[in-house]
Amino acid sequence: MKDIKITTKEGRRDFVKKAGLGTAASILSYPFLASCAAGTLQTKDKLGIALVGLGYYSTDLLAPALQETTHSYLAGIVTGTPEKAEKWKAKYGIPEKNIYNYDNYDDLANNPDIDIVYVVLPNSMHAEYTIRAAKAGKHVICEKPMAMDVAECEAMIKACKENNVSLSIGYRMHFEPNTQEVMRLGQEQVMGPVKMVCAGAGFTMGDGSKDHWKVKKAMGGGAMMDMGVYSLQAARYVTGEEPIAVTAQAIKTRKEMFTETEETMMFQLEFPSGAMANLHTSFGVNMNYLDARCAKGWIKLDPFSAYRNIKGSTSQGALEFPVINQQATQMDEVAMCIKEGKPMRVPGEEGLKDMKVVEAVYKAAATGEKISLA
Amino acid sequence: MKDIKITTKEGRRDFVKKAGLGTAASILSYPFLASCAAGTLQTKDKLGIALVGLGYYSTDLLAPALQETTHSYLAGIVTGTPEKAEKWKAKYGIPEKNIYNYDNYDDLANNPDIDIVYVVLPNSMHAEYTIRAAKAGKHVICEKPMAMDVAECEAMIKACKENNVSLSIGYRMHFEPNTQEVMRLGQEQVMGPVKMVCAGAGFTMGDGSKDHWKVKKAMGGGAMMDMGVYSLQAARYVTGEEPIAVTAQAIKTRKEMFTETEETMMFQLEFPSGAMANLHTSFGVNMNYLDARCAKGWIKLDPFSAYRNIKGSTSQGALEFPVINQQATQMDEVAMCIKEGKPMRVPGEEGLKDMKVVEAVYKAAATGEKISLA
Repeated sequence: MKDIKITTKEGRRDFVKKAGLGTAASILSYPFLASCAAGTLQTKDKLGIALVGLGYYSTDLLAPALQETTHSYLAGIVTGTPEKAEKWKAKYGIPEKNIYNYDNYDDLANNPDIDIVYVVLPNSMHAEYTIRAAKAGKHVICEKPMAMDVAECEAMIKACKENNVSLSIGYRMHFEPNTQEVMRLGQEQVMGPVKMVCAGAGFTMGDGSKDHWKVKKAMGGGAMMDMGVYSLQAARYVTGEEPIAVTAQAIKTRKEMFTETEETMMFQLEFPSGAMANLHTSFGVNMNYLDARCAKGWIKLDPFSAYRNIKGSTSQGALEFPVINQQATQMDEVAMCIKEGKPMRVPGEEGLKDMKVVEAVYKAAATGEKISLA
Repeated sequence: MKDIKITTKEGRRDFVKKAGLGTAASILSYPFLASCAAGTLQTKDKLGIALVGLGYYSTDLLAPALQETTHSYLAGIVTGTPEKAEKWKAKYGIPEKNIYNYDNYDDLANNPDIDIVYVVLPNSMHAEYTIRAAKAGKHVICEKPMAMDVAECEAMIKACKENNVSLSIGYRMHFEPNTQEVMRLGQEQVMGPVKMVCAGAGFTMGDGSKDHWKVKKAMGGGAMMDMGVYSLQAARYVTGEEPIAVTAQAIKTRKEMFTETEETMMFQLEFPSGAMANLHTSFGVNMNYLDARCAKGWIKLDPFSAYRNIKGSTSQGALEFPVINQQATQMDEVAMCIKEGKPMRVPGEEGLKDMKVVEAVYKAAATGEKISLA
């Protein structure tokens, strides 16, 4: 996290003071501030996060993580299920006034407790709830994949800019130390140029999942949308490049369950340097690994996108970075950056870059053609 | 090597005796003998091997291996380069009468010292020199890939059958204990059904290799032909299945060198069980690994086709099989099988199976279409 300065209370106060009194030049030296109005600069110790959508990820990962955070806390929830609201209210002591449903969601605008809205809804709802949060003047963290397509991603970025709020995509691996080291090793060509990246991300969805939103096309389902972005991210963050050509193959073995989306996607990327990636993702295969072959060695993470116990190794030895709470670190860093007026580590533009490739993957799979992104 | 009985001298004599005196029924109980005339059954202690083509593999691997063999020995050579003949003659004490060139190659028929001809020529010459050896009444080991196409493979198998000689393809990994264990683990579904196989086999060919036969299409060049068959073999031997569909992508980054063949091939296979493989091979990437994800665990070999130090591991622990001399083991087992009248571990039919897929890979890469092999 070399570009993220750990801020002491004193440091932050000092910065806020400077920001408040600063000249135009001093404001411009902080890129985020240039687009983020001083009015949204937060001076609280802990920023309040509202989780939107209380499914598995919010329940089992984000809410527990928010009990470990320093710069952020679980301030509110948005849910369409009153029973869930009661349960969360009791469990986490969330005040009634910070509990919203999808009808009064826009009233968040009037709630100073909520600084950040974390959109953890099915993919098809990411754009709408991000844009509405932005219009309510709230900073947004949106889960991956960012949205349904490039157009939605662009609209989300635009809305956040126009409303002077930050937008961060929920790529928790960017906050994980072993992964960060792999990014550095690849991008700085420590083992020579990256030549071939292979990554597989998948899990076996139970046979009885035919009603799950992750197999519904209109909800943003499909293995590529779900786990595929991890494989894609791996290729992009190890090379530090954007692909210029894409081929892909969509496969389904359980056709009765995958009537609308692919069960498995294999996809190949070509990068400007000549690096290549041969990637896969599946709802029918348990796999989670990244293998990058460089001119002078190799880099591996296995598993590479698990919630815990990321294990890294290289041809020069094992990586020995500590296990962290990825979600807590992610939310705290987002909160810190907002407090300091710094740019997001994983801005909307990062999600947009992935979505451009995801769109190309689907187009390549549908046509059988190589799609150029150059 | 469970299906290969280690034969003692006594056992062998006993068998030869039985074979010589046997009834039709006892002959038929040995499939190989059924097609291999009693006249070619060898009764020597060590069978004489002639290496055809004295390039790197013969020079650095096969000839040294033949100093370690028990059931075979370096009896002769075939080379078009008189200087090489002199050098080998001196180094290995090969008698003048066992040294051939490409003009008098067919005279091998009259040389009882030569039992087995090992074809180590460029791929485009495999079929011709295998068939000529068969016609000379010699057993054949032919290097991989077996030939240029399916038609050649079929002609080679036919010629060997018609001349009652055995045909074995030089897939040394089939004789390597860690690899054999991986075959067993996959095929017996010890970790559940194999779901996804990823394998990469490649090396970086020097920039000055534009005149090497391995980049000449007419000589059987191309990454897929050379290292690609290792990746293909991996998918086939881990699953124990034949692919029913193939897609492929040919890529070249050093276009000045790869004017005729691909530098890199990525290819995808679908198997009847639903298992998939996402594979790659390259003359521009140093890589050598096999990664199979099964329903209940994983199996890895890294490296998986190196000459030494094959390293295997599974989700249940490391494989601890000894390092062997692959080439010595291969040639000795071939010799033993010939002596015992047993079928080859890697017969021509195995090379043919690969070639059917290799043809489909090239067709898929050229057309961008999914090629059905069902």
